[in-house]
Amino acid sequence: MSDDWIESVAWNADGLVPAVAQDAASGEVLMLAWMNRESLARTVETGEAVYWSRSRKSLWKKGETSGHLQRVLEVRLDCDADAVLLRVESVKGIACHTGRRRCFFNRLEGAGGGRRWVATEPVIASADASDA
Amino acid sequence: MSDDWIESVAWNADGLVPAVAQDAASGEVLMLAWMNRESLARTVETGEAVYWSRSRKSLWKKGETSGHLQRVLEVRLDCDADAVLLRVESVKGIACHTGRRRCFFNRLEGAGGGRRWVATEPVIASADASDA
Repeated sequence: MSDDWIESVAWNADGLVPAVAQDAASGEVLMLAWMNRESLARTVETGEAVYWSRSRKSLWKKGETSGHLQRVLEVRLDCDADAVLLRVESVKGIACHTGRRRCFFNRLEGAGGGRRWVATEPVIASADASDA
Repeated sequence: MSDDWIESVAWNADGLVPAVAQDAASGEVLMLAWMNRESLARTVETGEAVYWSRSRKSLWKKGETSGHLQRVLEVRLDCDADAVLLRVESVKGIACHTGRRRCFFNRLEGAGGGRRWVATEPVIASADASDA
């Protein structure tokens, strides 16, 4: 397989690119994670999202233990090739390791000095920090 | 104004956080850019997206010269506080400096050795590289 399409990505100094996962059905932005060359290649080959865990410094197959896989329907690259967008089917409807539907559950509310982040999404599955 | 909500963000070593802009009407993911503390504060105070240009090392008010502003309807933070999601109204319907509706216009197509990125969105406004 030619890897030219992989080398077209503007990998950062650490060899990573941010990847945004969007639910193909609802349009919700589920999460932002990071990929290296191998995780992007495996994602495309297998059709299931594989990220790079910066904290564990290892490949991280989404939902490997929890079953909260992401089936990848489409892969997109932005204008300057330094961000990836995945349209996914979020298996079991959970993208977040906290057991929420999506990771972007904190909404900025209030005004002036009263501004604060408020969790707006319910926890609908048991949390599994090992399998974010 | 208390800045606690700003300090709740897990700024990276460069003092930046990735920010994803999503069209509030269509649900399309328009772009991924970066913010520092000041750009996030200005975005929230003014209700219009202000990013940080890593190439120019300066604040970058979206659409300042092109008029392709982004009115910010909602600001969200993810579970580990290291990514921001903006729901925006994309004024004039152009988010990309190439004159396209969104920056994620390259779709991965083909299979095996034939995989390639294909531009899928038409250019609908004159490009303005100075005002991405």
